Amino acid sequence: MLHTTLTHKLQIDYPILQAPMAGGPAGPELAAAVSEAGGLGQLGVGYLTPQQIREAIRAVRQRTDRPFGVNLFVPGPYAEDETIVRRMWDRLAAVRARFGLDSKLAAPPYAEPFEEQVRAVLEEKVPVCSFTFGIPSPSVVEAFRQQGTFLIGTATTVAEAIRLEAAGVDAIVAQGSEAGGHRGSFLNDEAEPLIGILALVPQIADRVSLPVIAAGGIMDGRGLAAILALGAEAAQMGTAFLACPESGAHPLYKQRVMSAREDETQVTRVYSGKAARGIVTAFMREMQADADGGMSIPPYPIQHVLTRDIRQAAAKAGDAEYMSLWAGQGVGQATDRHAAEIVRQTAVQAAGAMKQ
Amino acid sequence: MLHTTLTHKLQIDYPILQAPMAGGPAGPELAAAVSEAGGLGQLGVGYLTPQQIREAIRAVRQRTDRPFGVNLFVPGPYAEDETIVRRMWDRLAAVRARFGLDSKLAAPPYAEPFEEQVRAVLEEKVPVCSFTFGIPSPSVVEAFRQQGTFLIGTATTVAEAIRLEAAGVDAIVAQGSEAGGHRGSFLNDEAEPLIGILALVPQIADRVSLPVIAAGGIMDGRGLAAILALGAEAAQMGTAFLACPESGAHPLYKQRVMSAREDETQVTRVYSGKAARGIVTAFMREMQADADGGMSIPPYPIQHVLTRDIRQAAAKAGDAEYMSLWAGQGVGQATDRHAAEIVRQTAVQAAGAMKQ
Repeated sequence: MLHTTLTHKLQIDYPILQAPMAGGPAGPELAAAVSEAGGLGQLGVGYLTPQQIREAIRAVRQRTDRPFGVNLFVPGPYAEDETIVRRMWDRLAAVRARFGLDSKLAAPPYAEPFEEQVRAVLEEKVPVCSFTFGIPSPSVVEAFRQQGTFLIGTATTVAEAIRLEAAGVDAIVAQGSEAGGHRGSFLNDEAEPLIGILALVPQIADRVSLPVIAAGGIMDGRGLAAILALGAEAAQMGTAFLACPESGAHPLYKQRVMSAREDETQVTRVYSGKAARGIVTAFMREMQADADGGMSIPPYPIQHVLTRDIRQAAAKAGDAEYMSLWAGQGVGQATDRHAAEIVRQTAVQAAGAMKQ
Repeated sequence: MLHTTLTHKLQIDYPILQAPMAGGPAGPELAAAVSEAGGLGQLGVGYLTPQQIREAIRAVRQRTDRPFGVNLFVPGPYAEDETIVRRMWDRLAAVRARFGLDSKLAAPPYAEPFEEQVRAVLEEKVPVCSFTFGIPSPSVVEAFRQQGTFLIGTATTVAEAIRLEAAGVDAIVAQGSEAGGHRGSFLNDEAEPLIGILALVPQIADRVSLPVIAAGGIMDGRGLAAILALGAEAAQMGTAFLACPESGAHPLYKQRVMSAREDETQVTRVYSGKAARGIVTAFMREMQADADGGMSIPPYPIQHVLTRDIRQAAAKAGDAEYMSLWAGQGVGQATDRHAAEIVRQTAVQAAGAMKQ
């Protein structure tokens, strides 16, 4: 009853994808555990070097023979305004001082080279590759298609889903406003479209013929049954796996995920320059106050690089208030069960909910 | 299969409540049509005088013998800052001039007297009374309970739901971020909690023992099946009924509802001083730009009264860009079917979706 066209195509037992939470949580251990349990584990490799990507993929393969996915960030154009960057760096000096950092202002390139990341993933011939923040070029799509990799794009609006379908992906993640971490939106530059999953999935499903994967707020079998009723063919769950033993999230991050309420997350650009949902921290409050007062935040990936040493130092110092604590609005339901339990219990509960 | 404890208690055929959209759309014709079709129609009477409330209730009873509901706005405390009010009035002068208005600055009281509104509803002995914007006092709750009126409160967070349960209501509307019109939140003064239905319903259902009614983004049987899977016992649908012939919405408002995309709504305080979701208009854009630049917006209900003549004049002049076009994120699915068709087709589709 939980089998869909998509589970058949992906050769997985349950319509459950683990969200590719970059920056730590979604490493080889979590991805392998989810895949081994019958879902689709995914590596979040957007911040990794090509060599780190190869190693992560091989580490998954050492742990499981099941299908898994790798997620890449599609780079978009961004403006680099030296004055804005310098002002932000100066503003952040107080925060760096707090952690005794005397880092130097980062210079371009601000991101790992996408083409080389793609080459690494292509060479490893992974079963599934998903993309966030945009649409890969026709040549990248074609290269993956030729070797039979299943391609997933990420949309936050109907218009984005239509564009992804035209680009030739095989399935679309519909990312609802509930979702934790970075927003995948790439067509709306000004106001971030924050469409709830309940509204987004049917409207995307009505306009594209590809399988839709619902992401955002799905924490258990009730959520899975709900998004299947909406017309999605699978759920992508991130926050649900954040605090499990296989997650690579920092222990303090896991603690906050386990204690946070549903109304303690906000969408912010202060960490990376791109809108992302996380548990509210002192850093978010302080920087947002300045942003509301007119301070410009450099675009992604510049701001991500400008704040990176602070987040790393805060993690080392054990100060969660200056780390990024990405999480979705389902966070009040987070558990620290093993990943395999989460996959199986979600599937069992969904099947039960659908029989009623 | 669509029967729940709640449909039994409310004595309705289908777990579908029509949202009490105040200010025109949810008048006697719509409420009666929904109730007559087997759902629960609701009058939005928050802006009406006690006498108008009595007339509206009687008009429903002339049309149907079925149960229906009446929705009231619970007044909350608000600060009246003369300087802010005067500045807003001066700012709005340009908009009033556009419509040839030479209105005088409104003076208190800014809202209809709640106690008298309550008395009118009590005297009419309605089957269901729902509340938005807060918790009615113990004496009001008790008066309704004594005469057997079923009471519904509105929550946007788990904390609000818990407070409503403690106050003695019989069911709770969980209003998701997708919902159109005014936000019912009453505990978070600063950042508006905008929790998506998919995350909100299970978290509320886990923390209260009352039936939960899901509101926001539900446009068809897929949405109804989804929220039932999440643990809700009924759906409250507003935007789905906005453009139907029985809706009292202005023809231009209906036109925009029929043409708007899912990403064309925003949450704004510029119309009423309270956060509400509507289709973006020129008035919203202009006023929001000033608000972002530091202009203070008087709280509800002051701002509502300050902009009322503009909205009325715009409606008369046929200028939708200065009317309020409240709508939820499901707006891309809106239809102009009759209310009865919407109720029945939603129920049939939901039953079908749940059998799969």
